[in-house]
Amino acid sequence: MKIIETRQAPNPRRVRIFLAEKGIEIEYEEISIMTGEQRSDAFTAINPMQRVPVLVLDDGTAIAETVAICRYFEEQQPKPALMGEGALGRATVEMWQRRMESDLLWTVGNKFRHTNPRAIVLEDPQIAQWGEVNEGRAMDFLKVLDAHLADRPFVAGDNYSIADITGLCAVDFMKPAQLELPSEHTNVARWYGELAARPSAQA
Amino acid sequence: MKIIETRQAPNPRRVRIFLAEKGIEIEYEEISIMTGEQRSDAFTAINPMQRVPVLVLDDGTAIAETVAICRYFEEQQPKPALMGEGALGRATVEMWQRRMESDLLWTVGNKFRHTNPRAIVLEDPQIAQWGEVNEGRAMDFLKVLDAHLADRPFVAGDNYSIADITGLCAVDFMKPAQLELPSEHTNVARWYGELAARPSAQA
Repeated sequence: MKIIETRQAPNPRRVRIFLAEKGIEIEYEEISIMTGEQRSDAFTAINPMQRVPVLVLDDGTAIAETVAICRYFEEQQPKPALMGEGALGRATVEMWQRRMESDLLWTVGNKFRHTNPRAIVLEDPQIAQWGEVNEGRAMDFLKVLDAHLADRPFVAGDNYSIADITGLCAVDFMKPAQLELPSEHTNVARWYGELAARPSAQA
Repeated sequence: MKIIETRQAPNPRRVRIFLAEKGIEIEYEEISIMTGEQRSDAFTAINPMQRVPVLVLDDGTAIAETVAICRYFEEQQPKPALMGEGALGRATVEMWQRRMESDLLWTVGNKFRHTNPRAIVLEDPQIAQWGEVNEGRAMDFLKVLDAHLADRPFVAGDNYSIADITGLCAVDFMKPAQLELPSEHTNVARWYGELAARPSAQA
């Protein structure tokens, strides 16, 4: 069993942090997405969507998509629960995980992909206006998130979850996207600081 | 318990089909997203992201995000399993559900939102070039999907799942997006025809 990934991108990092929180060790194989290795015939045969990370099981079965890989390990080793427990708990984590993705990680990612000249290898054509629209949406979401974190330690409530992992990776990705966390968002800053201090953040 | 939604959009339809397949009946409350009701103070208090559908439990707890709502019901009533069974089964459904979303439903949706003049109420500013890029990506994905469906009845394998539901809603949303399924994709056409013939497709 191995994970094919790159150290440079936020999605593989989400999986590495998830596995670190579970205490699961696994072999990693690196490819370079900035030189287009994900478009090779060999990798396309593993993931036709040409994206990392991909989990490859010992029989060759490939599981792509970050959250699908996390789901596999959550089912294999339920503790500590990182995707919620019970119907309401699992739905709540799923809701916030998706918000952290679509409204923060993807918006920050679109700012990067559409406005950083280096990212042309990932996003062609780059549409600067779309990057700017996404910057605005990321900033709007951070206001919602700051209010939400005023009275709960973690995004999904009392327990650390995959929604926090996505959030940590999104906030860290603001740097290459040339975005700064507004200083008035003190709840986001407190939450981010706690996540970044966990050993798993180094994974 | 009720679901606040609109009949006009693909995401609420995904939930309705999911519940029809489970045989679960629930109260629906309609709001109009084309007149901006999702931005009212009352609705924003329920879902700060101003999106439908939202599941509201009897105690007032709100679960937003389509797949989070489905997850709630999957956990409450596991049969028939629409999100996979076992670690590999659940991961496989999650992988394909996400591909059907990000590479088909959202690309088709972006084509609609960024190029249909009526959609300015949903997407402002509209960026025509981004709509066209997404059309190309939707068409690219349909090729991958057609090859994938050559030797399996459903997207995730032998069993109908939420990945098929997302796919059905995406293909049906091609019409308002002014996209046509290329006639050479006979496997997609066979699969779509079978999904559309299920009673749940009328939900």
